[in-house]
Amino acid sequence: MESDLSDSCSPLTDGTALAVARGTLRLFFRHDMSGILEVPLPNGRRADIMALDGAGRITIVEIKCSRADLLGDMKWPDYFDYCDRYFWAVPSGFDLSLFESEALWPGRTGLIVADQYDAELVRPAPMEPLAAARRKAETLRFARRAARRLTALSDPDHAGGTGW
Amino acid sequence: MESDLSDSCSPLTDGTALAVARGTLRLFFRHDMSGILEVPLPNGRRADIMALDGAGRITIVEIKCSRADLLGDMKWPDYFDYCDRYFWAVPSGFDLSLFESEALWPGRTGLIVADQYDAELVRPAPMEPLAAARRKAETLRFARRAARRLTALSDPDHAGGTGW
Repeated sequence: MESDLSDSCSPLTDGTALAVARGTLRLFFRHDMSGILEVPLPNGRRADIMALDGAGRITIVEIKCSRADLLGDMKWPDYFDYCDRYFWAVPSGFDLSLFESEALWPGRTGLIVADQYDAELVRPAPMEPLAAARRKAETLRFARRAARRLTALSDPDHAGGTGW
Repeated sequence: MESDLSDSCSPLTDGTALAVARGTLRLFFRHDMSGILEVPLPNGRRADIMALDGAGRITIVEIKCSRADLLGDMKWPDYFDYCDRYFWAVPSGFDLSLFESEALWPGRTGLIVADQYDAELVRPAPMEPLAAARRKAETLRFARRAARRLTALSDPDHAGGTGW
């Protein structure tokens, strides 16, 4: 398991957030994007979803389930340092007008509305290419993390407590 | 599931081979190498284990459970095109003298003896660095494959039949 469970931006302990994550992964799957959940970053943040497309471009998705959750997070632009493209993902019924606020960079961020069955791309996000060295490092960390999680699932006695 | 189950070099359907794979992954885990099983390669082969170390170097392991299995495979050097380092892995009791044969490139291949609990590195393998572009492409494919497998495990109704 992830060691830093004290992180206050950890919506994936919430059922609604998990449903949004599942629906978003289904959307991504159809678009040939392969994602994993809850990815710790070197800057201390944790991405709710990180996904790789066939060209190696990195997408990060931050899931917000409430207005307070959204407006209380002032450091979300830190995610830009680790992705080529950034999306918000919210459950159905969320007030989408909030995402028109300049404080939430509408020209730089996309928007996904999701439930547990599927997701809709409401606003596309522009690609803002990472430096190649950063993308390379993050791709390797993604690959190793996903492999460790698979090993932990197939051999929990050995690997379950480490390397998540 | 992997679509090409007709591949004759598919020892991981065998209990002994699975035990060797598990023990080898445990050995790798201790050495900070993150591996996944049964990785199809662009050349039509399938690596029994592919692992990434912290520097991004790729190790391929071919599991052999019988002398016939070992000596009947004439195309194994094709794996060199997709790894920085190559190991044979065999179960306890396997005749290790076979791996001294020049036909099996003892100066280029390492040797692991494993059971379901652990593995021993009997002969180290030299690093023969891949071209950077090849390593980059394979790392991305590894990352996306591992992520798809995780998604298939967490959302089997949706993803179980695709993208393995």
